[in-house]
Amino acid sequence: MQSADAKLSRSSLQLALRRYSTAVHNMEQTILLPSLLRDVPYDNDPDCEAADHSMDLYEYYLLLKAIKNTVESGLIAHDDVKAKSHATLHKVLEPLLEAELEALFHFHLQGLFTVMATLTKKSQNLTEKYLDIVGISR
Amino acid sequence: MQSADAKLSRSSLQLALRRYSTAVHNMEQTILLPSLLRDVPYDNDPDCEAADHSMDLYEYYLLLKAIKNTVESGLIAHDDVKAKSHATLHKVLEPLLEAELEALFHFHLQGLFTVMATLTKKSQNLTEKYLDIVGISR
Repeated sequence: MQSADAKLSRSSLQLALRRYSTAVHNMEQTILLPSLLRDVPYDNDPDCEAADHSMDLYEYYLLLKAIKNTVESGLIAHDDVKAKSHATLHKVLEPLLEAELEALFHFHLQGLFTVMATLTKKSQNLTEKYLDIVGISR
Repeated sequence: MQSADAKLSRSSLQLALRRYSTAVHNMEQTILLPSLLRDVPYDNDPDCEAADHSMDLYEYYLLLKAIKNTVESGLIAHDDVKAKSHATLHKVLEPLLEAELEALFHFHLQGLFTVMATLTKKSQNLTEKYLDIVGISR
């Protein structure tokens, strides 16, 4: 998927968003019985430090699908139901929001890119886990 | 997830990015002699609280053009020269980066959207200021 150019460490936000959609699409196509993921904890994931340990794989599956919908619609709800969950982030950032716009632009662009890459990996991991559960290895 | 409600306050990141490109394009078409902006301070701008007061209008003009290039190419440089300037942001955010990915996704998506809207307004203001300087009012 990565071309020669990509090796030079260039990364496109568009591409990251598309890669995520593809990973979730593949996950949806593979996971025919999502209910098998219920009550399976995430904590045997080697790179789950950033994961919410209170969620099971089924909840993760739903979350990844919901984020895909937001990514594909491109819509941002101003009175987002998720607003509360990032209230802490905003509080911490408040003094910095007055900082220079350029830094803020790069910060959010890079941030969104990084989150998309992590979410893509999560979708791929979840797909692999499902295949393990149903006893199919590839 | 969002339907009729969303229509009232729906916003698309794609649209915000496109609006910014258009505003800067218009600014470039209007400002035929950018050097006239040299040494003109930004501080008579009513909504410049967030502006970097050490910059003159000419530097702002160059900054807005540079950000447009990044927006249009969609490329993110990993070893960004701007990295240092948002090191503070990262330091403050470090404990929160381990937080749930979903909140982080919404935070950066909303953040990028807000920054683009502010930058679009800055480009429009700068274009107006130039017209004031050359004595053309519209």
